[in-house]
Amino acid sequence: MGGVRSPPPIGPARIREYAEADWAQVWSIVRGVVRAQETFPYDPAMTEEQAHLVWIERPPALTVVAVDGPRVLGTAKMSANRGGPGAHVSTASFMVADDARGRGVGEALCRFALDWARDAGFAGMQFNAVVETNRAAVDLYRRLGFSLIGTVPRAFAHPTLGRVGLHIMYRDL
Amino acid sequence: MGGVRSPPPIGPARIREYAEADWAQVWSIVRGVVRAQETFPYDPAMTEEQAHLVWIERPPALTVVAVDGPRVLGTAKMSANRGGPGAHVSTASFMVADDARGRGVGEALCRFALDWARDAGFAGMQFNAVVETNRAAVDLYRRLGFSLIGTVPRAFAHPTLGRVGLHIMYRDL
Repeated sequence: MGGVRSPPPIGPARIREYAEADWAQVWSIVRGVVRAQETFPYDPAMTEEQAHLVWIERPPALTVVAVDGPRVLGTAKMSANRGGPGAHVSTASFMVADDARGRGVGEALCRFALDWARDAGFAGMQFNAVVETNRAAVDLYRRLGFSLIGTVPRAFAHPTLGRVGLHIMYRDL
Repeated sequence: MGGVRSPPPIGPARIREYAEADWAQVWSIVRGVVRAQETFPYDPAMTEEQAHLVWIERPPALTVVAVDGPRVLGTAKMSANRGGPGAHVSTASFMVADDARGRGVGEALCRFALDWARDAGFAGMQFNAVVETNRAAVDLYRRLGFSLIGTVPRAFAHPTLGRVGLHIMYRDL
């Protein structure tokens, strides 16, 4: 028949630890998310070097990628949320490539992070700044057991929606 | 009369920008607060070098000291709370020397930080992790116009009270 060509199907994502060979693809995802300014309170002018410092964690924290063969579909980082007397609560962040959204990659990454945090002995997981208009993220986190702790009003300057709230979300592990 | 000797009176604190010559006194305050593990989610084993990195801000952020003559009574740091689309909300942290508490030093530092943030054009100020059992801080922040956004349950391991909540507090500027 011809005409419209379907995008290549994306298989189920496999999640594995980040390796330096993934950086070009991870940077492409991070750059896209940060420049869009819709979901992360990161400087959109962030350089590649700054992005590497921010996104690539060192043990005992962890950065992972969700892959389909050689292709990186998404990435996550996970760590303690605070130090000392706050170090028993974890946090995590997730980014999915533009053209891999809506296929469960974010959910797979979030489930992985929850398992990681549980295995590492954390008592809970906290998200510090979930943009309230990011429905995909908010709905996913609720589905995975996170509660809304509160919303900081007008704390995120969305490029088209103006100043919207930032949710703090939490779940016990 | 003799007998009990009163501590030397502490005059009204003057607040000025931190200078490297203040470090010994600032480190003494930071070390005391962090080792007590009652109010800050910082690693109690934090080294002097790490403390310097964490506490001494670079412009446009600011670290200040509250002084009475040559003596440093307390210190504060203030900055944007997040980057990019979150950079219009400020944050600040305050520490007061053990033997200078209950004399309005924290309040003077907090008022200074609010003025600084307003002058710098920030739209609000957010505290990310106020230990709920730190009544002096919680009461002060409420008195200065901060509202409770929410409390992350059991997120702070207090040395004598067990796991207590961490408040997120906010006010518009």
